[in-house]
Amino acid sequence: MKRIAVLTSGGDSAGMNPALKSIVEQSRRDRISVTGFLRGYLGLVNGLAIEMYYKTVAGIARKGGTVIKSSRLPEFREISVQKQAIANLGKNEIDGLIVIGGDGSIRGASALAALGVPIVAIPASIDNDIYGSDISLGVDTSLNTIVNSIDIIKDTASSHNRAFVIETMGRTSGYLALVGAMATGAEAVVIPEVPYDIECIANRLKEEHRKGREYSIVVVAEGTGATSKMSEALKQISNFDTRITVLGHLQRGGSPSVFDRILGFRLGSQAVRALIEGRSGVMMALEGSKIVEVPFEDVLTHKKLLGKRYLEYARRLSR
Amino acid sequence: MKRIAVLTSGGDSAGMNPALKSIVEQSRRDRISVTGFLRGYLGLVNGLAIEMYYKTVAGIARKGGTVIKSSRLPEFREISVQKQAIANLGKNEIDGLIVIGGDGSIRGASALAALGVPIVAIPASIDNDIYGSDISLGVDTSLNTIVNSIDIIKDTASSHNRAFVIETMGRTSGYLALVGAMATGAEAVVIPEVPYDIECIANRLKEEHRKGREYSIVVVAEGTGATSKMSEALKQISNFDTRITVLGHLQRGGSPSVFDRILGFRLGSQAVRALIEGRSGVMMALEGSKIVEVPFEDVLTHKKLLGKRYLEYARRLSR
Amino acid sequence: MKRIAVLTSGGDSAGMNPALKSIVEQSRRDRISVTGFLRGYLGLVNGLAIEMYYKTVAGIARKGGTVIKSSRLPEFREISVQKQAIANLGKNEIDGLIVIGGDGSIRGASALAALGVPIVAIPASIDNDIYGSDISLGVDTSLNTIVNSIDIIKDTASSHNRAFVIETMGRTSGYLALVGAMATGAEAVVIPEVPYDIECIANRLKEEHRKGREYSIVVVAEGTGATSKMSEALKQISNFDTRITVLGHLQRGGSPSVFDRILGFRLGSQAVRALIEGRSGVMMALEGSKIVEVPFEDVLTHKKLLGKRYLEYARRLSR
Amino acid sequence: MKRIAVLTSGGDSAGMNPALKSIVEQSRRDRISVTGFLRGYLGLVNGLAIEMYYKTVAGIARKGGTVIKSSRLPEFREISVQKQAIANLGKNEIDGLIVIGGDGSIRGASALAALGVPIVAIPASIDNDIYGSDISLGVDTSLNTIVNSIDIIKDTASSHNRAFVIETMGRTSGYLALVGAMATGAEAVVIPEVPYDIECIANRLKEEHRKGREYSIVVVAEGTGATSKMSEALKQISNFDTRITVLGHLQRGGSPSVFDRILGFRLGSQAVRALIEGRSGVMMALEGSKIVEVPFEDVLTHKKLLGKRYLEYARRLSR
Repeated sequence: MKRIAVLTSGGDSAGMNPALKSIVEQSRRDRISVTGFLRGYLGLVNGLAIEMYYKTVAGIARKGGTVIKSSRLPEFREISVQKQAIANLGKNEIDGLIVIGGDGSIRGASALAALGVPIVAIPASIDNDIYGSDISLGVDTSLNTIVNSIDIIKDTASSHNRAFVIETMGRTSGYLALVGAMATGAEAVVIPEVPYDIECIANRLKEEHRKGREYSIVVVAEGTGATSKMSEALKQISNFDTRITVLGHLQRGGSPSVFDRILGFRLGSQAVRALIEGRSGVMMALEGSKIVEVPFEDVLTHKKLLGKRYLEYARRLSR
Repeated sequence: MKRIAVLTSGGDSAGMNPALKSIVEQSRRDRISVTGFLRGYLGLVNGLAIEMYYKTVAGIARKGGTVIKSSRLPEFREISVQKQAIANLGKNEIDGLIVIGGDGSIRGASALAALGVPIVAIPASIDNDIYGSDISLGVDTSLNTIVNSIDIIKDTASSHNRAFVIETMGRTSGYLALVGAMATGAEAVVIPEVPYDIECIANRLKEEHRKGREYSIVVVAEGTGATSKMSEALKQISNFDTRITVLGHLQRGGSPSVFDRILGFRLGSQAVRALIEGRSGVMMALEGSKIVEVPFEDVLTHKKLLGKRYLEYARRLSR
Repeated sequence: MKRIAVLTSGGDSAGMNPALKSIVEQSRRDRISVTGFLRGYLGLVNGLAIEMYYKTVAGIARKGGTVIKSSRLPEFREISVQKQAIANLGKNEIDGLIVIGGDGSIRGASALAALGVPIVAIPASIDNDIYGSDISLGVDTSLNTIVNSIDIIKDTASSHNRAFVIETMGRTSGYLALVGAMATGAEAVVIPEVPYDIECIANRLKEEHRKGREYSIVVVAEGTGATSKMSEALKQISNFDTRITVLGHLQRGGSPSVFDRILGFRLGSQAVRALIEGRSGVMMALEGSKIVEVPFEDVLTHKKLLGKRYLEYARRLSR
Repeated sequence: MKRIAVLTSGGDSAGMNPALKSIVEQSRRDRISVTGFLRGYLGLVNGLAIEMYYKTVAGIARKGGTVIKSSRLPEFREISVQKQAIANLGKNEIDGLIVIGGDGSIRGASALAALGVPIVAIPASIDNDIYGSDISLGVDTSLNTIVNSIDIIKDTASSHNRAFVIETMGRTSGYLALVGAMATGAEAVVIPEVPYDIECIANRLKEEHRKGREYSIVVVAEGTGATSKMSEALKQISNFDTRITVLGHLQRGGSPSVFDRILGFRLGSQAVRALIEGRSGVMMALEGSKIVEVPFEDVLTHKKLLGKRYLEYARRLSR
């Protein structure tokens, strides 16, 4: 193995840069050269390649986002496009590829693996919706940003005896919303994984208000589409002065937390080791405190579920 | 002067707590007792009063929001309601009142002054839209929150070659949007004070993109109502993958910056001194590096304008 | 079980407050009252007790330190002092005790367990030196503070082509120093667990400097006592303009990170459950992603070691 | 005027990068090229020059330190060294020079001005000890870092009923220590400008402790050399468990605050305008809300004093 390549794909997350740094440093220690394809699969398909040196990754561990950029490329489902990618791998004399990204990116990696490309993946997604890894790269940083934001908004809520509906990212996963709610002691949460009753929540908060609670925070996962409905219910039923805050892309960036830096380093160097040792078609994953390897098929055929205690907590706050 | 009262009114802003701390400490040093009316004019009208000791304000300088809470009370325009307030001032044996808030709150204070209440005001509004003071309490903290948020979003924008439209607070004032744009080097700004041309901006950013700029940030003041239009234009004309982030109530809170703490202390102690020395109907204000007193009438009959250099900068970025 | 008590002991760490919150909330849900002994074993011995309600712990999850205060009490080794503690437990009708603290605190708890007190412990120590738990409460927050500080100092180091020796806490454990060095890409590390060669480090950094590295960061664990020696060597051998920064008590406090909040909640509620279910003499611990119970004896008779990969990394940077 | 040069000298401070960005952008708008001399006067004397483009300064406003690096060069007092500098200005066809730095740097600039070099200066020093400007570049960022650190340490102090002596930077100026103490409500302050009585402070804090204050913070300016003495007195006289934290180089760096970014932009563009309009031998300065120009002689022959109110506050806390 003389040269490997790496790309970051899909929504960016903090921790991608630490992973890149670790991949380059581990490879160089093993006397392997590293090519970076820019803008995810787009760059792989179009041959946008750069050489990655120690210098390319110096000082990037503290930076949010990804220095080799990312994008989404739905067309990568087409076999003709995949073949173009493989041609580019050949042209650049790549012996193995590391893909850093979420579910969609791993699906692309799986297609390449099926066509014989030596390939491993690193789970990066702030939603924490990737099966097989306890936590994905970027989740911890994202949660800390969310929780700091909610703490700040509580200052305002508390000054006005108001209700706030705070929308976090998370299309199919309520992880960010739920953990954000837990960590800030929010009064209610609305996530896709657990049945919720908006009227019931509004009535409960009204009652708690009557008993003396001065303000209420409801955290809603984007994917439920329930943000406005929740806000309306709080106005109508609870008679609260209610405001919505959509945290938006703030949740993606920021300087990676220590957890995401160290996790990125571990996943990155293990990914290089896996390629060197001839493994392919697997995702590096955190299981407890260990890095393990999970076959792409397992990742792609299972849905990551919330743990039992999380579900219990969510159920208590969803009505 | 044996007892003064204080209230915080309107949208909360960082710096209200430091001002409260300073009012209580200065008064106690001058052997004056302090009553706090809760929830702004609402508490004044309804007699929700607490005694404020050293202990009430210990450790609050680092807290966002206001510990004596705030609210809006449009009914305070009615003379009957104002008279109820005056009755409560009498009942609580208040010799002077300090109102901390924005334009609307000062209008209320002015009405009470006209009815003979010894009263002074402290300008607090994150919009920086209060005439007479170079800067209002809470603006500096708010700007730092905005700028940190935009810095974070730039990480994501840069990773995806995207355009971002970021909406700041500011109904009639573009101060937050403009200074936020300046401090982060945003490519364009849309504010109420300066004519803007959305199509022109979109064409310019397209052209800059063609020349190599990798991503674009446009900061829009809420009061222009132009956020969606700007986003649409960027999609249609510039063909950018465009996202909107509305910073929302995040901008109000957070631990007060050093600037807002010190300004709050100075305005608070000067307000107490002004009452003791028999002045009334004036707002404490920052002019250059001095605290001055501006008559309510001046405050209420002028519109605070952006400085010449700010306007020039805005014009350059608005088309 | 009608009433339990809780105390925090030893050096404070972020996460103590979330644990307290969780203990009170879990107990109340199980209809158990909670007594807080103030200032650790000192309060237990002297009967400084407060009743802990929902309200006592409202809003504390975001606060550093411990609201029921802490202290060190070396005299607690004496059996007469322990008996006084037990007398106070009786007087306050305590059916079980939860101790939150480090090694020394668990030693105290073990003594009480031997005398028949139903007692469980929660590991809290920023040093991460408690055997049996992958990580202790407060470590994650502390590491994030350390890493942010080093990132800031790198700005200065980079502006001056300087060397910086940064001292972290850690008497017998180099965990903070090592992970701080890893996360910031420091050039060298000096910790108690791994033999280090200060002259060798200085020569290496001189050589790296000659090859183009513009500045150097060495992270030293307090417990090695090597901070000044390292600095002198850098001045003498490498001829660097060298500065020392001792991070000090900054490392203890700060708003708990999401990781420490959630870990505090989990350890707190599990501790209550363990007491209810009749277990005693055990420490709640994080093993992988699970909360397990480790007998005091195991905790106290083993030394927590750095993991293999950590040791390898440290060895590479220690010469 | 076809080409100007810029250098940053002395201790780095946040705001240097925003000033550099503004100098390059303003110059380019006026069709003037910009040379950056690296490492302050050292680079000027040794001809370490780089061309500064828009790209050189893109994205630097959010970065602490200085991208063209800094150093101290005591030898610059010698006329032979100054002449070498002038020779290099000629060789690089420089029509005017902007020096960003503190008192020592302005002394160097003054020497060059006397030798006929068109030169202006920008005051940058976290100590705020430069006469003529209300505030220097970097002070606001530094103060916010100091105050956040003290807030964090208060969490620990409060958890342990301890005294903390916190040492800030400031050799001849107590500005950082004093404003840091004011903003955090510290119990005492020790600065060079005001006579202090360490025993008296220790006795006062002992007395306050007796009356119920739970912990004490004393902020000491480095330049007094009184840190250990203060700590000893607190231990001996007040019988406090006392700890010292030296904030150190943490105070220099960090992402520039909004205040420092905007101030850097204003000072930078005004410096370019001044050179273009033929002025020399002046320092750009903030006076109230205006940028004014102060002759080097005025700057160098006066000592910046603390304002009257600051002195009063300091006197109250110094005994």
